[in-house]
Amino acid sequence: MMQGTMKAIVKPERAPGAKLDEVPIPQISDQEVLIQVKATSICGTDVHIYAWDEWSQSRVNPPYVFGHEFAGVVVEKGKNVTNVDIGDHVSAETHIVCGECKQCLTGQAHICANTQIIGVDRDGCFAEYVALPAVNLWKNDPELPFDVASVQEPFGNGVHTVLAGDVAGKTVAVIGCGPIGIMAVGVAKACGASQVIAFDLNDYRLDLATKMGATTVVNSINEDPLEVVRALTNGEGVDVVCEMSGHPIAMNQGFKMVTNGGRVSILSLPVRPVEIDVTNDIVFKGITVQGITGRKMYETWQQVSGLLSSGQVDVKPMITHHFPLEDFEKGFNLMLEGKCGKVVLHP
Amino acid sequence: MMQGTMKAIVKPERAPGAKLDEVPIPQISDQEVLIQVKATSICGTDVHIYAWDEWSQSRVNPPYVFGHEFAGVVVEKGKNVTNVDIGDHVSAETHIVCGECKQCLTGQAHICANTQIIGVDRDGCFAEYVALPAVNLWKNDPELPFDVASVQEPFGNGVHTVLAGDVAGKTVAVIGCGPIGIMAVGVAKACGASQVIAFDLNDYRLDLATKMGATTVVNSINEDPLEVVRALTNGEGVDVVCEMSGHPIAMNQGFKMVTNGGRVSILSLPVRPVEIDVTNDIVFKGITVQGITGRKMYETWQQVSGLLSSGQVDVKPMITHHFPLEDFEKGFNLMLEGKCGKVVLHP
Amino acid sequence: MMQGTMKAIVKPERAPGAKLDEVPIPQISDQEVLIQVKATSICGTDVHIYAWDEWSQSRVNPPYVFGHEFAGVVVEKGKNVTNVDIGDHVSAETHIVCGECKQCLTGQAHICANTQIIGVDRDGCFAEYVALPAVNLWKNDPELPFDVASVQEPFGNGVHTVLAGDVAGKTVAVIGCGPIGIMAVGVAKACGASQVIAFDLNDYRLDLATKMGATTVVNSINEDPLEVVRALTNGEGVDVVCEMSGHPIAMNQGFKMVTNGGRVSILSLPVRPVEIDVTNDIVFKGITVQGITGRKMYETWQQVSGLLSSGQVDVKPMITHHFPLEDFEKGFNLMLEGKCGKVVLHP
Amino acid sequence: MMQGTMKAIVKPERAPGAKLDEVPIPQISDQEVLIQVKATSICGTDVHIYAWDEWSQSRVNPPYVFGHEFAGVVVEKGKNVTNVDIGDHVSAETHIVCGECKQCLTGQAHICANTQIIGVDRDGCFAEYVALPAVNLWKNDPELPFDVASVQEPFGNGVHTVLAGDVAGKTVAVIGCGPIGIMAVGVAKACGASQVIAFDLNDYRLDLATKMGATTVVNSINEDPLEVVRALTNGEGVDVVCEMSGHPIAMNQGFKMVTNGGRVSILSLPVRPVEIDVTNDIVFKGITVQGITGRKMYETWQQVSGLLSSGQVDVKPMITHHFPLEDFEKGFNLMLEGKCGKVVLHP
Repeated sequence: MMQGTMKAIVKPERAPGAKLDEVPIPQISDQEVLIQVKATSICGTDVHIYAWDEWSQSRVNPPYVFGHEFAGVVVEKGKNVTNVDIGDHVSAETHIVCGECKQCLTGQAHICANTQIIGVDRDGCFAEYVALPAVNLWKNDPELPFDVASVQEPFGNGVHTVLAGDVAGKTVAVIGCGPIGIMAVGVAKACGASQVIAFDLNDYRLDLATKMGATTVVNSINEDPLEVVRALTNGEGVDVVCEMSGHPIAMNQGFKMVTNGGRVSILSLPVRPVEIDVTNDIVFKGITVQGITGRKMYETWQQVSGLLSSGQVDVKPMITHHFPLEDFEKGFNLMLEGKCGKVVLHP
Repeated sequence: MMQGTMKAIVKPERAPGAKLDEVPIPQISDQEVLIQVKATSICGTDVHIYAWDEWSQSRVNPPYVFGHEFAGVVVEKGKNVTNVDIGDHVSAETHIVCGECKQCLTGQAHICANTQIIGVDRDGCFAEYVALPAVNLWKNDPELPFDVASVQEPFGNGVHTVLAGDVAGKTVAVIGCGPIGIMAVGVAKACGASQVIAFDLNDYRLDLATKMGATTVVNSINEDPLEVVRALTNGEGVDVVCEMSGHPIAMNQGFKMVTNGGRVSILSLPVRPVEIDVTNDIVFKGITVQGITGRKMYETWQQVSGLLSSGQVDVKPMITHHFPLEDFEKGFNLMLEGKCGKVVLHP
Repeated sequence: MMQGTMKAIVKPERAPGAKLDEVPIPQISDQEVLIQVKATSICGTDVHIYAWDEWSQSRVNPPYVFGHEFAGVVVEKGKNVTNVDIGDHVSAETHIVCGECKQCLTGQAHICANTQIIGVDRDGCFAEYVALPAVNLWKNDPELPFDVASVQEPFGNGVHTVLAGDVAGKTVAVIGCGPIGIMAVGVAKACGASQVIAFDLNDYRLDLATKMGATTVVNSINEDPLEVVRALTNGEGVDVVCEMSGHPIAMNQGFKMVTNGGRVSILSLPVRPVEIDVTNDIVFKGITVQGITGRKMYETWQQVSGLLSSGQVDVKPMITHHFPLEDFEKGFNLMLEGKCGKVVLHP
Repeated sequence: MMQGTMKAIVKPERAPGAKLDEVPIPQISDQEVLIQVKATSICGTDVHIYAWDEWSQSRVNPPYVFGHEFAGVVVEKGKNVTNVDIGDHVSAETHIVCGECKQCLTGQAHICANTQIIGVDRDGCFAEYVALPAVNLWKNDPELPFDVASVQEPFGNGVHTVLAGDVAGKTVAVIGCGPIGIMAVGVAKACGASQVIAFDLNDYRLDLATKMGATTVVNSINEDPLEVVRALTNGEGVDVVCEMSGHPIAMNQGFKMVTNGGRVSILSLPVRPVEIDVTNDIVFKGITVQGITGRKMYETWQQVSGLLSSGQVDVKPMITHHFPLEDFEKGFNLMLEGKCGKVVLHP
């Protein structure tokens, strides 16, 4: 067993901020694996924890190591582990599930009610090493660059959202161009969407959406999203809305821009209840609304691997910044300013 | 062509009420059929028009004959009509659709944006005769009693809602036990649901729900719906919610009682926007919400015929009242009081 | 740990037959559970092993204890077991899967290419005790009688086949009325099929099919199956065929009796390749053919529990014989003669 | 009404061959439209009729004008026609369906048992003008070149086959690289397939498959298809097989190369029954086999328009030859030799 200490970004106390620290290298159980982290990317969730918002205050228990997106190499394995070997390149599904509830037993483990999340409910991967249950690992093609492999987890959110129904030959709107929204644009384009219309208030990110394949980008401050959609769809509305903004106005625009019988897939987390015109926007239109959480375990991961390894989606354009682990604050600041795509840290 | 006049219930003016009148027998075009009405049932929509609520004021144009649920016999057909013959027993799909829009061209005619509804946007069937496009007719088994055949249209709403996903071996909640809710109970039971839990505030209608097969009925005034569901489902929640109440509190109870990954199918029409906890009740739970309008044309009708002709569902217990057409006001009063299941008028 | 010996039906050697023997009570690992068997039923597979047919010769390795359908009570559990407790009533999924292959990782564990089957590839449950991996156990309602609980596994095959698509309001043919076929009849009926037409050459079993809810039974020696179907379906054919005979002529009748766009779900295992008129019976008809293996893990088990515990399906009429374990030969003889529904042995 | 005569390719008699002739311009009914043909492409079916094979002898009734793939401009419309106008660019769904059968009434019109096919059962489009029911027309973007618009019908076959299930992030095999197979390759690639492996015996067509996006092409004479698939899929087999060869050996290779739980979609028409190892290749593998006929009316057409107008698929590389209508024999000879992709005739 590896002994000693390692560098890690620690959430030290119940207050804003984080610090680089030396902490013990984690020890593994018979069912776990120790991974040397080669790249780890910053998620919006990490920014919430860093900023210490209401949700973080109610959920996380400092001090602990946070972070959950990564790619690395297996350096130790417990005696019962059979699915990976020392030296394997891996990333991880960040939902640690119970395996025994109704959802886990029916192919819906991603919505297990007993889920623990890496870097939220237990130590995470903003560190030189991370210990994880072997069943949560996903083996990467060794030729996949570590930074690309690290963003597979949020890319999986985009894949899960976009591919929760058909998109081939259909018109798709992506509302909200944070990193996952931008990746969703790339997925929709790669999977045959006839139009991919991206909405945001941030031109920097709309520019990234264009690079990832958006056929139209709309800054909703400058243009009326509903008018744009009407003009682009012969008045019919879009077939699919991927709601990734979490903003009540934008979300309702989504309900209004979708065509009768269309699909609205919601990955975002509005901070309070949203008023929805159920009668006119859901019932009379006969639409389907889907709540999307996590990634299907592990169907989404297979789709992720297929789309990345084949080159059908190239996520490089949206990985905009790289820093050594020590410079994590630069990354968090960029995220807070919205002046980045994905930020990758290298331990 | 049949000439002369007929008895009809007419909405005479922009004010509450209706009156029995003599009006001309309608004339048919080459694509239409004249039907002698044998039984016609009162829908909640008819009650809205009778009571002259906000929606009616914005939609209908008196004077005209209303009513849309019926069973009858073909007495005349236009020269281009090939799908029915004189003497055939028929009912009708009440959505008259354009046949040319995107929805009509992709098997979604029930949500055609150009829909006209019989008895709402054109003359209806509270009369001795009704003229209709031949393509809207559904041929009935001549052995099917006229009163049962008349309620196929709203029964179809129930079938469309319940069978918009799987119910076999699953737990189903029906929120709101108006006539369609009560029929939905019967459909869920007949299609293999392991539990059918019915909710309403009206004991008369809960009693009908029991007769149609509910395994538990809950008067939401007396019992906490969420507690009942927890107790009956081992704390997991129900697999399927059929929302037929239109009440914001009941609807939100539906979102809270459904299990992670479950389905909420909404047929009801809340009169104003509803506040929904999208984050906790839709996204984190990974549920699917469906807006349900009308009946699939004509897949639902085939299911309706299959369920009724086989005896899998017996709707007789919920057809509680019969009147001659002349006594229509007795029927409307019962509907307004909620002291009935389905009321059938006989011209 | 329980020590000592127990009674068991052993396949002693590579030849027809079996014998009752005293063998050591099995020892369990940290992930396993020891179950006292209360009821165990005979499957067609057991009859193949007993009769020592070609397939058995190529697959099983005597001496070993066979049998795989059972219900029992947990009497010991390994230290890592968390999903069941001592005293729980349980049955088991008989496919022991690898958990690591593509199928296992995408909700298709029932077709894991590395499957081991209880009582085929390792010791089974024709015994007083059986040791099994905890993850394979299904907890039974303690009120479910042991004989009913024992037939859940083959009942699950029927459920998997029938519910591999819609049946509500549809016409269903079940070809081949062995025990699984008879249970499939009950499932189709309970799940809203408008007609359930059962075919076999054995009147004893057709009689059981009637008891389980078949709306028409056809002895294919005496009547032409295709003519019967045409007469019962207005010339259109049935919506769904459940092929459970394994006979090439009957299977091809299934392809011919299904309506355009219908479904043929095949659970049977024809002993040699079958000539199929792909052009006329599959392509021009636009049908879907499904190969059905095992039970979905564990969606099918949830449906099974839902259908049995609710009383939607009553399997009692097809459990025709009970014997003490010692009289197993009587049971095997009845199975060979086709003069039984399900035969249950009681250790 | 347009009077006079026009040039047309006529099948003059029950014998091999065809001839260019002057025939009357067709007259239209109230529900029909007259179209000036701008481009018309040769289908394999036309080659069968030209060569006068067994199938043609049993189906078509010379003398008549054949051909069914085209693009043109509306020049006359019947008085009841509302969905197109004079001057519209159009192509046509070639299945003229009854609109009244069970399949037509449930969104399955493409497998209507009463289908008539343009150019097979009635006069077709190898001519200067063609008369068609207005409901069969599909309006084209006027910017779509006529040759591209003409191949939408067979392109739709490819779309229907490939998109009869998911392909995004999956491995897809296309067996048989006639024009539809080659287009299927393009569709799979455009819709996110991680690998598209194309099989044929004809290197010319495999070269076109490469141009349309195949990631691997296999001449099955030179390489063992099953070995290639095993090597490319880590031994797992492909997720999806599109069978377009009609050859029994190739079809069975398809069943053997598909992964457990995969999909085999068959568009081809083998000339006689095929021996299939149902037990090992369908049941134990738990696969789904789909018969594919025509195009979904009109969901497939919407997908076709979406994929072509967006540029997601470019069919130009596989339209290899253009001739004036008069030189039709050159086109038929190329088709017979397999030395072409799609051949377009210009009246």
